[in-house]
Amino acid sequence: TGVAMMKFKSPPVNSLSLEFLTEFSISLEKLENNRACRGVIITSAVPKIFSSGLDITEMCGKSMEHYTEFWRAVQEMWLRLYGSNMVTVAAVNGSSPAGGCLVALSCDYRIMAENPKFSIGLNEAQLGIVAPFWFKDTFVNVVGHRIAERSLQLGSLHPAPEAHKLGLVDELVPEEKLMEKAAAVMAQWLALPDHARQLTKTMMRKVVLDRLVAHREEDIKNFITFISKESIQKSLRMYMEMLKKRK
Amino acid sequence: TGVAMMKFKSPPVNSLSLEFLTEFSISLEKLENNRACRGVIITSAVPKIFSSGLDITEMCGKSMEHYTEFWRAVQEMWLRLYGSNMVTVAAVNGSSPAGGCLVALSCDYRIMAENPKFSIGLNEAQLGIVAPFWFKDTFVNVVGHRIAERSLQLGSLHPAPEAHKLGLVDELVPEEKLMEKAAAVMAQWLALPDHARQLTKTMMRKVVLDRLVAHREEDIKNFITFISKESIQKSLRMYMEMLKKRK
Amino acid sequence: TGVAMMKFKSPPVNSLSLEFLTEFSISLEKLENNRACRGVIITSAVPKIFSSGLDITEMCGKSMEHYTEFWRAVQEMWLRLYGSNMVTVAAVNGSSPAGGCLVALSCDYRIMAENPKFSIGLNEAQLGIVAPFWFKDTFVNVVGHRIAERSLQLGSLHPAPEAHKLGLVDELVPEEKLMEKAAAVMAQWLALPDHARQLTKTMMRKVVLDRLVAHREEDIKNFITFISKESIQKSLRMYMEMLKKRK
Repeated sequence: TGVAMMKFKSPPVNSLSLEFLTEFSISLEKLENNRACRGVIITSAVPKIFSSGLDITEMCGKSMEHYTEFWRAVQEMWLRLYGSNMVTVAAVNGSSPAGGCLVALSCDYRIMAENPKFSIGLNEAQLGIVAPFWFKDTFVNVVGHRIAERSLQLGSLHPAPEAHKLGLVDELVPEEKLMEKAAAVMAQWLALPDHARQLTKTMMRKVVLDRLVAHREEDIKNFITFISKESIQKSLRMYMEMLKKRK
Repeated sequence: TGVAMMKFKSPPVNSLSLEFLTEFSISLEKLENNRACRGVIITSAVPKIFSSGLDITEMCGKSMEHYTEFWRAVQEMWLRLYGSNMVTVAAVNGSSPAGGCLVALSCDYRIMAENPKFSIGLNEAQLGIVAPFWFKDTFVNVVGHRIAERSLQLGSLHPAPEAHKLGLVDELVPEEKLMEKAAAVMAQWLALPDHARQLTKTMMRKVVLDRLVAHREEDIKNFITFISKESIQKSLRMYMEMLKKRK
Repeated sequence: TGVAMMKFKSPPVNSLSLEFLTEFSISLEKLENNRACRGVIITSAVPKIFSSGLDITEMCGKSMEHYTEFWRAVQEMWLRLYGSNMVTVAAVNGSSPAGGCLVALSCDYRIMAENPKFSIGLNEAQLGIVAPFWFKDTFVNVVGHRIAERSLQLGSLHPAPEAHKLGLVDELVPEEKLMEKAAAVMAQWLALPDHARQLTKTMMRKVVLDRLVAHREEDIKNFITFISKESIQKSLRMYMEMLKKRK
């Protein structure tokens, strides 16, 4: 059918570790180079969670080299996904904070299970960290400046119904209908001639993609400087402790 | 009253041919230079259609010179209309795809007949072509980035009620009330002092207008290169065949 | 509690005079430098009016030196408020035209008394003058391009319910609940770590702040040139006459 399905399966919470990101980017590259593949549906094989976002263990107590490699992998994933020529549909079948939200925001269309227990958002500020400018740019392109400003400052995690109301996701469906709906949306998008659709997509996203490409090394440096601060390391460690206790 | 009425009357579908565009621009220029004229209402004298957009016969099987002249006329029309010092109200009394939609988007206010059979949108992608960046900029200024991205990629033609919901048109009224409403809106806008209103309009639109002015020749070259491709010519021919059969 | 309360008290209508603006900026600076202060709630001690905006007497029949000093004070107030590191909540307990609206728009969150007799908006065009580009930028960041374009051209004053619908204010509450609600919102925003929240805010607002910083002297010149025109002076005088008669 020309449609690939990508199911995140990295229990317990589909953290975006260096390994996960690298595999993700390689998979995207392969699909991109496969002319038979015109679209990809991204979803999770882990119950209740789409992706918990960047793996905090990769950002805690590691070397500068490791931080550099990790951040480059995050950038790489986003550049490939946001700039993909394929039709990309996120079937968000669980919660999706921070980097998980970025994955969804980078797709062409977002369908979310209507379960109000599932939430989505760029909640970095809650952890004492700051979403990078290209997370912000991607977010603003979806929900506009005001909603992004408020949501980012508050580090909001929006329950599915609220996320839908804000435009963060395009559609809510009962969880059991999610894949069916994703396939229907994909068919609708694939009804368009690829070339015109791709050029149109590039026209819409190029400014924001180019901004990261132009500032990629600077962005890595900023990340390292920020993440290496003792205060930030401390708050990340506290956050990890809290997560462990919650289990 | 200081208000001009411009009624598109180029049956069967008010295609924006080279001749039509040239006349349109000249009319706008005359009104602009007529100090007695402060506003213009744009509507159609052809039933069920506002304007079907750019005339495809002008883009099919013609010379480079012709394409150049045609595209310059499209640019000229938009620069005049989007940058007009007059209050411009579109009374959209029929369907308005592609270039027809651009005309409406370029006005200060859009009122549409609430007939759900009438649709409006930048549906270029459906024809295998791409809306130019300044069509896109005009669209984004009206509906925001996300709605524009989705609508342009899908080449959507939105029925009047949906167009209203998306903000593509400002108001829906029963068709028989359209002109009355347009006159009332015009009166409301003309109640403002011209000079302040014009400076404000310029402030809002200058960035986007300047972008085309700065890249006008490049934009013409892009258009010619694109439209001259055999694949594009073929899909335009197929589209014209389809239109003929539909009649 | 780390929260300051700023109550505008310059009867009859809290006009932003040179003296008022200077005091306002000094107060903001003091709070900003006070590490114990993390947030400020801005409201009015004058019934029915939040702030009537820039004091027209400062713009009428004065010297170039005075205009320069006045405009610099307006800029200074906005740069401090829009760029504040504190959480800023506007408790809009009355009407808030023009510069009064700018004060509210520059805060992080706007709560308005739900009284439909209270209105808010950048109505400069009604007076025959033009909102400066940074008023416009601040407005667009809150309500988006289309709503800003229409509202600025019409010089609209939106009754509270309409302002809420447009996103100009975030929330409406009965007037007697306004301060309680403002305190609750403040507590919600202060629950976030300051540093991450501040960096996020800067990321969202820096582009627009930098634009004025880069063009500050030019903006003063533009203001003086515009305001010194006899036609503008005349319409300001007429407006003041009208205000006097209304009393």
